[in-house]
Amino acid sequence: MQAVGMVVEFNPFHNGHAYYVQQARAQTGADVAVAVMSGNFTQRGEPTIVDKWQRTRAALANGVDLVVELPLFFACQPAHRFAAGALALLNQLRVAAVAFGAEHPQWDFAALVRTAAKFDQAALKQYNATYATQFNEQLAAQTGVSLKDPNDILAFAYNKAVWDHHYGIRLVPIQRVGSNYHDQVITGQIASASAIREAIEQQTAFAETVPAEMRPALQQLGKVPDWDALYPLLRNQLIQAPLENLRQTYQMAEGLEYRLKAAAQQSLTFDQFIHAIKTKRYTYAHLIRLCLYATLQLTEAEMTWHTAHPYLHILGFNQRGRAYLHQVKKQVEFPLFTKVSQQMRDHLYCLDYRAGKLYQTFTPVEQDLKHAPIIWR
Amino acid sequence: MQAVGMVVEFNPFHNGHAYYVQQARAQTGADVAVAVMSGNFTQRGEPTIVDKWQRTRAALANGVDLVVELPLFFACQPAHRFAAGALALLNQLRVAAVAFGAEHPQWDFAALVRTAAKFDQAALKQYNATYATQFNEQLAAQTGVSLKDPNDILAFAYNKAVWDHHYGIRLVPIQRVGSNYHDQVITGQIASASAIREAIEQQTAFAETVPAEMRPALQQLGKVPDWDALYPLLRNQLIQAPLENLRQTYQMAEGLEYRLKAAAQQSLTFDQFIHAIKTKRYTYAHLIRLCLYATLQLTEAEMTWHTAHPYLHILGFNQRGRAYLHQVKKQVEFPLFTKVSQQMRDHLYCLDYRAGKLYQTFTPVEQDLKHAPIIWR
Repeated sequence: MQAVGMVVEFNPFHNGHAYYVQQARAQTGADVAVAVMSGNFTQRGEPTIVDKWQRTRAALANGVDLVVELPLFFACQPAHRFAAGALALLNQLRVAAVAFGAEHPQWDFAALVRTAAKFDQAALKQYNATYATQFNEQLAAQTGVSLKDPNDILAFAYNKAVWDHHYGIRLVPIQRVGSNYHDQVITGQIASASAIREAIEQQTAFAETVPAEMRPALQQLGKVPDWDALYPLLRNQLIQAPLENLRQTYQMAEGLEYRLKAAAQQSLTFDQFIHAIKTKRYTYAHLIRLCLYATLQLTEAEMTWHTAHPYLHILGFNQRGRAYLHQVKKQVEFPLFTKVSQQMRDHLYCLDYRAGKLYQTFTPVEQDLKHAPIIWR
Repeated sequence: MQAVGMVVEFNPFHNGHAYYVQQARAQTGADVAVAVMSGNFTQRGEPTIVDKWQRTRAALANGVDLVVELPLFFACQPAHRFAAGALALLNQLRVAAVAFGAEHPQWDFAALVRTAAKFDQAALKQYNATYATQFNEQLAAQTGVSLKDPNDILAFAYNKAVWDHHYGIRLVPIQRVGSNYHDQVITGQIASASAIREAIEQQTAFAETVPAEMRPALQQLGKVPDWDALYPLLRNQLIQAPLENLRQTYQMAEGLEYRLKAAAQQSLTFDQFIHAIKTKRYTYAHLIRLCLYATLQLTEAEMTWHTAHPYLHILGFNQRGRAYLHQVKKQVEFPLFTKVSQQMRDHLYCLDYRAGKLYQTFTPVEQDLKHAPIIWR
């Protein structure tokens, strides 16, 4: 059996995702579709709209054969780390190809990667604009390509990961259909995840845009999980922890700990807080991820350890997924498991476990300990 | 002018307190009534029903001339530390007498203190019962007195503080009237603070039991502040902080950090949590205070520093209180201030400041920074 890998958030799983899974299979001729999916927090550091188990169930009901959790230490990272972590997992799972949506699938991303490899990195790290802005300006100047759409950025990052690590993986860009990531209005059966989340928040119609298996969980949502609800926990950490502890937080650079503590003392809502800390130097996504790291008390040292100790936590599979796992498991070098033991909770898996406890702000469901994988039909 | 001091929580200020203030003045012949009052957390480690400013206002409207904050590092402590801290402040304020309610004002508390001074302290610290239980048994065996009512326990502690430090303060016990601390039913105009809080929680009549100045704040309360609302902050700290950090928490002894972390992981409500950690070895009050220390990330080292650096934070006064302050301020050795500066926020006053931020779980009102004292008429 040959597999096609996908790197996904499915936040929530919608009709565009079902089409993408079908295309991934069709365009690669793969027998098995393997998804590496973010857990309960997205790449931007936001809580997902429903938990990883509900999203896994919807994925398995709509063409995915095997769902593996993308650990938080890869999932909640800038695009290049996110993509590199996901491809490391898919490479372990011996996928023949990785398919991904792109706004411009016709671009030669591999050539862009080779061009960018020659950039002077030190020159890009100036203080008056974000790294991403400067990188993009240089790439545009040399190639005429403007790498600004989110899926194009990821497409570039997947190609870079394959180039950096010499993975034997074929990369297959797929044209995104029906809507753009930033579209906020639902006009048919295909809508962006962002538009669907907005419709749920505003209590307007969205049911036509998601498969039947995703609907009940979304319809039962009282409120869309967001940072407003997590802010009291972040705020208390920023207020109570001494500066020397906050300084140990992953990505707490350049005196940000002073800025965050002062903003937390004065801000009663997340909206006030995030605007108080925003500067040109950092994007909102960067700062929201930093909020997540601080709430999880995730240190630089801990992040370094975790990224050096990746694993494959199986969230669910069908019979084909199970057969594929059986086929490849002897070649897998990372720890592979379907249940989180107490020993894992305290060591290898501790960061995802703690994130699952944080996610209990939104659901009473235990997210990990002794949780069985979802076995579909 | 001569002053009588009182050690109070006023949680909330009620008719029994108004009577007590009047008796304190009458029985001592003092010109000025000075109250040292807990801030936003009680001796048991619970959030107060309304903030310290509203309670200060009610006190000044009902016979108190000067209100000073009892810092959290004294206020949220077992009776003997609570009493010793409060008397240290009142001694600085040069009060001639301290009046306090007692269930048995006829007892010779000074004689009980002298008897207890001869107890073998090491023998009292066994593992099969609380220190308090063993202390009481020994006192009862030697004197026939059963020191179990909360105000009798404090009366004993005030006498012990005067004995330990040779304070020139006359101690005046006052018979408590109308209700006992543990009474939970309102039957007249005098009810216990505990019964009044219960009536507010249950939305039954309580207005007759508190003076007019206390009513609006209590009537506008949506919900009585409690640990249910603080628990998510405590829980996140216990889950996210490494064991070696939790171990530094003040009073986190004998491996309690393991017990608290495990209970937090499994408990979604404070009720579940506190029952999960309860043992014979510790009282509920001890454990609730420990919850507060953990939420404030208050370490043993920090507590030691703070108790060695007490201060007098003036919450409010009337003209008589102001005149008395003027009379004694040259003899006061502790820092005395009416406004919290940014410098104090970060150093001397930082623990009360952080507690005020935690109390913002219940009110949007800034509790300290640049807050003016209440000046009554």
